[in-house]
Amino acid sequence: MSAPVIRKASGPDSLVISDDCNHPANVICELCRLFFDKDWVTGTGGGMSIRQDNLVYLAPSGVQKERMKPENMFVMDLNTRDYLKTPDTYKPSACTPLFLSIYNAADAGACIHTHSQSAVMVSLLYDKEFRISNIEQIKAVPRITEAGYLDNTDELVIPIIENTLQEEDLTPYLAKTLMEYPAASAVIVRRHGIFVWGANIWKAKIINEAIDYLLELAVKMRSFGINTTGPLGIEKESPYHECSHHH
Amino acid sequence: MSAPVIRKASGPDSLVISDDCNHPANVICELCRLFFDKDWVTGTGGGMSIRQDNLVYLAPSGVQKERMKPENMFVMDLNTRDYLKTPDTYKPSACTPLFLSIYNAADAGACIHTHSQSAVMVSLLYDKEFRISNIEQIKAVPRITEAGYLDNTDELVIPIIENTLQEEDLTPYLAKTLMEYPAASAVIVRRHGIFVWGANIWKAKIINEAIDYLLELAVKMRSFGINTTGPLGIEKESPYHECSHHH
Amino acid sequence: MSAPVIRKASGPDSLVISDDCNHPANVICELCRLFFDKDWVTGTGGGMSIRQDNLVYLAPSGVQKERMKPENMFVMDLNTRDYLKTPDTYKPSACTPLFLSIYNAADAGACIHTHSQSAVMVSLLYDKEFRISNIEQIKAVPRITEAGYLDNTDELVIPIIENTLQEEDLTPYLAKTLMEYPAASAVIVRRHGIFVWGANIWKAKIINEAIDYLLELAVKMRSFGINTTGPLGIEKESPYHECSHHH
Amino acid sequence: MSAPVIRKASGPDSLVISDDCNHPANVICELCRLFFDKDWVTGTGGGMSIRQDNLVYLAPSGVQKERMKPENMFVMDLNTRDYLKTPDTYKPSACTPLFLSIYNAADAGACIHTHSQSAVMVSLLYDKEFRISNIEQIKAVPRITEAGYLDNTDELVIPIIENTLQEEDLTPYLAKTLMEYPAASAVIVRRHGIFVWGANIWKAKIINEAIDYLLELAVKMRSFGINTTGPLGIEKESPYHECSHHH
Repeated sequence: MSAPVIRKASGPDSLVISDDCNHPANVICELCRLFFDKDWVTGTGGGMSIRQDNLVYLAPSGVQKERMKPENMFVMDLNTRDYLKTPDTYKPSACTPLFLSIYNAADAGACIHTHSQSAVMVSLLYDKEFRISNIEQIKAVPRITEAGYLDNTDELVIPIIENTLQEEDLTPYLAKTLMEYPAASAVIVRRHGIFVWGANIWKAKIINEAIDYLLELAVKMRSFGINTTGPLGIEKESPYHECSHHH
Repeated sequence: MSAPVIRKASGPDSLVISDDCNHPANVICELCRLFFDKDWVTGTGGGMSIRQDNLVYLAPSGVQKERMKPENMFVMDLNTRDYLKTPDTYKPSACTPLFLSIYNAADAGACIHTHSQSAVMVSLLYDKEFRISNIEQIKAVPRITEAGYLDNTDELVIPIIENTLQEEDLTPYLAKTLMEYPAASAVIVRRHGIFVWGANIWKAKIINEAIDYLLELAVKMRSFGINTTGPLGIEKESPYHECSHHH
Repeated sequence: MSAPVIRKASGPDSLVISDDCNHPANVICELCRLFFDKDWVTGTGGGMSIRQDNLVYLAPSGVQKERMKPENMFVMDLNTRDYLKTPDTYKPSACTPLFLSIYNAADAGACIHTHSQSAVMVSLLYDKEFRISNIEQIKAVPRITEAGYLDNTDELVIPIIENTLQEEDLTPYLAKTLMEYPAASAVIVRRHGIFVWGANIWKAKIINEAIDYLLELAVKMRSFGINTTGPLGIEKESPYHECSHHH
Repeated sequence: MSAPVIRKASGPDSLVISDDCNHPANVICELCRLFFDKDWVTGTGGGMSIRQDNLVYLAPSGVQKERMKPENMFVMDLNTRDYLKTPDTYKPSACTPLFLSIYNAADAGACIHTHSQSAVMVSLLYDKEFRISNIEQIKAVPRITEAGYLDNTDELVIPIIENTLQEEDLTPYLAKTLMEYPAASAVIVRRHGIFVWGANIWKAKIINEAIDYLLELAVKMRSFGINTTGPLGIEKESPYHECSHHH
């Protein structure tokens, strides 16, 4: 019943109405539904944006993520910061200045913000940085400051910043962190969630899925008393390991 | 196979048959299916109601939530408490007096009742009230007694009442609690589930999702020995925290 | 792509081909897909059967539960135990004698067998019987030996029997247990799964969902050191409870 | 929107374009979507291949598993190792030499590789082999070196090999393990995931689901202090068991 009706449109709507399933406005709708099903953006938490050349597509604030339609999108000119298209009933997402800050610093083509419970739990179990190494899924995360992807023996480091009262107040802390961690593909906000980006939306999606997998795994590992860093074989110190003397 | 056939109807059926996907009878069917998929209303547990002006739409008792059809709905006149439409084979939900009590006290436009396992687990880990603060998702919950939404630094308080033998016997305790907690958006019933409401069904849905997220997170936090209230940094006392001396 | 093509059929196929979505062969396909999505019948584990008057509809052995089609069904005459319809490529389910035993003893209209992980975990945490009381969801379980449903203050008792090498070897133990527990709606098989039944398939489905909810909840409760029986307030003895002195 | 358009094709595309839902290229797309939903292949992790006579169908590298289309497939001649069909924009999967190694050693008709979190957790809790016995679901795993399937009293043994920097570097270790464990249906790669195979894709899928069920159950059992091997009744030694003196 709520499937978007695809039609040709004139005026500002032409920026978001397309029968190409890879059009940014359609992709945001497809992925918000998918992320809702994965429990990353329930309760209207989280947000998503795609940049194509100079146009920034932004999911609106407060929308039911699984019911979003292309015509609900905002479209902004990245240079002038003018909205070229605003939907009828929605307000811009509070993530907007954060996404623009990421586009500015990281030359990203897409940004994803979720309230992933694994990200929140990791922010309650780690202090200034989340670190994990020697897990295959790490290889899905790009190096950024040089070509290619991390090795599975590299340590993935995700900085954790403190939450603020208003989402936009995170902007200077996020910008500072992007400068301090030029190789970062993500920033965790303590007791809040995670921001992830990539060269385009499909790469950002993969990085988000890979990192969330690692966050979920890290929470499980720590519940079994296993550190996510340290030498191979450190898991044998866990009291739950079959080789453990505590067993 | 079980998709509702949308058709114009006359007689009482005209109250529930509409090709508008935002009609209350269609929305209840859409959301009951969604909530079934999220495991909030399995085993015919839970219920849902929408109030539109003076009409109250009520999902029936004992129905398979993922197979509900608009013609299964009850429609009641809120003033006279007469049923304007009753389905052929179903009985009114035992939640009906509770929903009416909420409409009466809280001026809500929709009520949701689930048997969420996170709500039941929280009712087994907390005494008289569930309390949580310093989590971003708290901002999705309205203040009720004043305009706007909670800050993430506010403490969300959800009263917990004792269960009764019959669901309708909860009514006086719920009514009393609504008076004692005029800012509440939800009430947990110990060893039973949760009632959530909002100005309209879409707001009630968001509040339900946000609160359930917080309940699920709270259960995880306590399993790691982390209190859901107290000052920022209290998580460092957890034996699972990387800064912990117990580690 | 794998949606069943509904067509009128003659010969034995007429027993399973119908465009009525409530026909037993269609309902078994719909529910097996649903149960696959809920992770109750992955790896071709589990089974399902509906009895309508003297006809017993049986899902075959070894079929991909989410791809089952009405023409894959077996149909048996309950009196003669003759197959009135056998599918081309499948073998009868090893559950068949167990389902017949339940139809014989419990006058059920449908049987469900799953390899639910919660059922297996409960069979590893409880000895001869699973017992739980004072949880609302208990009210979805019928009394059987008298009219109506359990109260939430009643103790739900599900007997646990030992597993055997061959599934059909469970039959005498199941039959004996059905005699010893005439009020049972389910039997757990240790390290194996659970059998659930009801007056018809929709009631059996509700009972299965309600019991699985209680099994899942019980595993969580015990992980927090909370007994599933005993007086109200026993949860305060948990070291995880906010009132606990151990906290 | 992203549903594959089924059309007749000439040239190499004819190897992958078919309106038969059981054509290998269609089955890989159907199952990758299913496995994505089950969280086994998120973040483009994992891979899948089907062998039909001398043709090997291979899902490409780096593709969004839930959006895969038949025309994205590689098709290789198993004898010559020549690609008979390569998609436009994708690279061969790094799993390719591993899948070929399995086809060579195990005479399999299909291979599945996932980054299952349960497989990774098991590789952190067990040393050289994962072992489990006395669970019904074991019966879904074939004996390989003789006809038929394991008994539920048999011990399922899955070897665990160490991870390597490049996926293809696993090949000699996998080949060596296949020789040492001729009865194996799967190999776990520590901190990485699992490879599973079967006589055809539907058998491989069932074995993968059954083994993942057992891995997930094993992680739960160990979190309750229950060994996955040893005599029946060993679970009573768990401090969480109702008969436990530690309780």
